[in-house]
Amino acid sequence: MKLNPLFPTVETLAINTDLYELTMAAAYFEGGHHEEHATFELFARKLPKRRSFLIAAGLEQALHFVDNIRFTKQAVDHLRSLDVFKSVRSDFFDYLRQFRFTGDLYALPEGTVFFSGEPILQVTGPIIESQILETCLINCINFQSMVASKAARLSLAGKGRSIVDFGSRRAHSLQAGILAARASFLGGCSGTSNVLAAQEMGIPVHGTMAHSFVQACGDEKKAFELFYQVFRENSILLVDTYDTLAGLEKAVQIGHDIKGVRLDSGNLAELAFQAREFLDRHGYQNTQIVASGDLDEERIHSLAMADTPIDAFGVGTDLAVSTDAPTCDLVYKLVEVIREGRTEPRIKTSQGKSTFPYRKQIFRKVGKEGFAGDVICKWDEEIKIPEGAEPLLRKQVENGRLIARVPDVSEIRAHVQEQLSQLPSSFKLLHSVEEYPVQYSDQLIKVQRELTEMHPHSTTI
Amino acid sequence: MKLNPLFPTVETLAINTDLYELTMAAAYFEGGHHEEHATFELFARKLPKRRSFLIAAGLEQALHFVDNIRFTKQAVDHLRSLDVFKSVRSDFFDYLRQFRFTGDLYALPEGTVFFSGEPILQVTGPIIESQILETCLINCINFQSMVASKAARLSLAGKGRSIVDFGSRRAHSLQAGILAARASFLGGCSGTSNVLAAQEMGIPVHGTMAHSFVQACGDEKKAFELFYQVFRENSILLVDTYDTLAGLEKAVQIGHDIKGVRLDSGNLAELAFQAREFLDRHGYQNTQIVASGDLDEERIHSLAMADTPIDAFGVGTDLAVSTDAPTCDLVYKLVEVIREGRTEPRIKTSQGKSTFPYRKQIFRKVGKEGFAGDVICKWDEEIKIPEGAEPLLRKQVENGRLIARVPDVSEIRAHVQEQLSQLPSSFKLLHSVEEYPVQYSDQLIKVQRELTEMHPHSTTI
Repeated sequence: MKLNPLFPTVETLAINTDLYELTMAAAYFEGGHHEEHATFELFARKLPKRRSFLIAAGLEQALHFVDNIRFTKQAVDHLRSLDVFKSVRSDFFDYLRQFRFTGDLYALPEGTVFFSGEPILQVTGPIIESQILETCLINCINFQSMVASKAARLSLAGKGRSIVDFGSRRAHSLQAGILAARASFLGGCSGTSNVLAAQEMGIPVHGTMAHSFVQACGDEKKAFELFYQVFRENSILLVDTYDTLAGLEKAVQIGHDIKGVRLDSGNLAELAFQAREFLDRHGYQNTQIVASGDLDEERIHSLAMADTPIDAFGVGTDLAVSTDAPTCDLVYKLVEVIREGRTEPRIKTSQGKSTFPYRKQIFRKVGKEGFAGDVICKWDEEIKIPEGAEPLLRKQVENGRLIARVPDVSEIRAHVQEQLSQLPSSFKLLHSVEEYPVQYSDQLIKVQRELTEMHPHSTTI
Repeated sequence: MKLNPLFPTVETLAINTDLYELTMAAAYFEGGHHEEHATFELFARKLPKRRSFLIAAGLEQALHFVDNIRFTKQAVDHLRSLDVFKSVRSDFFDYLRQFRFTGDLYALPEGTVFFSGEPILQVTGPIIESQILETCLINCINFQSMVASKAARLSLAGKGRSIVDFGSRRAHSLQAGILAARASFLGGCSGTSNVLAAQEMGIPVHGTMAHSFVQACGDEKKAFELFYQVFRENSILLVDTYDTLAGLEKAVQIGHDIKGVRLDSGNLAELAFQAREFLDRHGYQNTQIVASGDLDEERIHSLAMADTPIDAFGVGTDLAVSTDAPTCDLVYKLVEVIREGRTEPRIKTSQGKSTFPYRKQIFRKVGKEGFAGDVICKWDEEIKIPEGAEPLLRKQVENGRLIARVPDVSEIRAHVQEQLSQLPSSFKLLHSVEEYPVQYSDQLIKVQRELTEMHPHSTTI
């Protein structure tokens, strides 16, 4: 019997998408619009709840997609077979078979802090191509940005203590587990439990033991001894299968060089103080205390504020699914169309979902206190650029060819640290009440107002 | 430059896992325990918030994993290179190279309704093998069960109206998008927007158009005309890019056979009534109204209760990430070990995380009103089985070989419908206050009590 693991593959990238990307593509093609150039931008309409900043992540996987998207014969045959495409001419399917992305792509470097309304990725090229990229681009950037932002919050809450990703089992699919390991490392975690992610990216890998090991051995002491016999100074002993303090008593009979003990239940603050005192008293000053078990940034913050002697936190579900905000709700919107050599602005005026027109650039002011406000302007607008402000969107792909160097995860992680060091403290609070100042340029505001006034009655934009 | 998409593959299944599964495996091996048999069970400690039942899903992918897990040379070489394994003898790595799962696996058929505490999957076999499966099994079943349960809630809330999965862009990875399409169809959705999922599983695929298409064409009327020219009676026109009623006015100039119009913003209830009246008045009685835009079961329930004339709902984020409960928090726990021919029960007594010992079976009573309560008992316990009660856990894998027929998605979907029809209404409310009766057998309660009393001081279990 053929069991389908439903793995994504490079061959199926093009149709791992929403049908409407392809129906619109067919309509553009039939209407002769497919070579008209357009710009789409990816951004967050508003920040998820409790977030005062986000961290851009997932660009490497997005670039892989853009570089490798092809419609295989099998995919095109499948599309042809769908009732909805029955009146579409054969030329369109021939077009798909030779499809390549030939446009330009700009993006914030991975690890850059961003705020609502800011385009973090921008695609300029034939409208049919830029449209077809939509679903996968959102998918790649939305998830990893969500996890990287969560990891940054957890790390800030931990005040320097290590946070380790334990989320693979609860991540939404096997791929989500690997991507979550990547994004959480970028965001500030010190490692992951996922062996494959570690192998693929050189991320430090961590692991202890499960309760089942203690239960299986039938006796905590025997379990600890066996584990220590194999792993020596790398041993981290899980002490709470039955009674934590009784577990600790056994741990201190094992060997002074054990690396750590892990607490996974109960009152972690109380237990950690007791454990530290107990370990120290028995000469285990170098033994670390690792805590896990339904942790989130609130609990970690409380534990860190109380100076609880916990050296590292293992965070599973809350990190890999970002429980309190399981999406960044990124959207990918058309902002301009080039028609007969003329750049025409585009907006939506749908209730609660209106957008700013034109291809944009972001400039970030940096003062003595760090980031001091962003300005979003029209791409080619002549504005007075604040001194020292650098444009944030950088060219990644030119005429369909990757031109940027793709940094490795350690470089990106360092960039995040540098970014966070420049973000003023008031925006790094767990419950920030201030909003980082993001300003639209006069020209953007003017054009948006004009276009909004023209709609719904105008049909010219 | 090599860009890494971080796709899961069949070759990397074995190390797409938490490191501790492999450190424990090494310790079992070194301790000579690896051939001892044990049983692990997968279950939800408690139901996620607002859930009064869950639907088991993801078994096909779990079985694929169990059937295909192998440690490649590359994976083993990587493990060998890790500092933590430096003292592990070479025999263990040789063991991994020839690793196969050789045990038995029982599970609820996909689509079965289940409740907290109930083992939905059970692995019996050499402890080292059963342990190594943990992370991937949880990953496969947890995510799809979460989405299938969400889809069932959405479908119940919609009172017979179609719910379509639009979640691929916000799913946590490309794979999560495909799996969410599968699980949501099982749970009751009528289709998906994901073309690949549709191709792989024969799920109906749906799509309309995006605002960008209307914006790009520069004029709603032109956009509608072009789309209709290509898609005729399959055309669903998005009418809210600027002003919904003005959009509708243009839609009724297109052709009486258009399939539908889509509303994606604003007051959906009000707009749907206005749209229905307007469409009917213009002779578009057969034109469907599709609604989308940040929908969840609460909003759909309100719209359905008000008899809003909406024929189908497109649900994206809320379905694919189950926003209000983005995990089922399934756990995989050791319940017994067979040592020297004797079956020894195993429990955890960790605070708030205690478990029931022994390999179990579930019997579900079915009365005239449908499901009438479950009994969880010891696998071989002689209990008075309620009349007509069938054992829920079915053998899927025997001695490592798949023996069950794996149903296709339509069969599973029908099973879900049948299950829901038997679940009494009080448990199908959006905010159920009643708890479905699940009873543990006398023997399980007795043994759990005895073992709990023995701990933490006993070391014999």
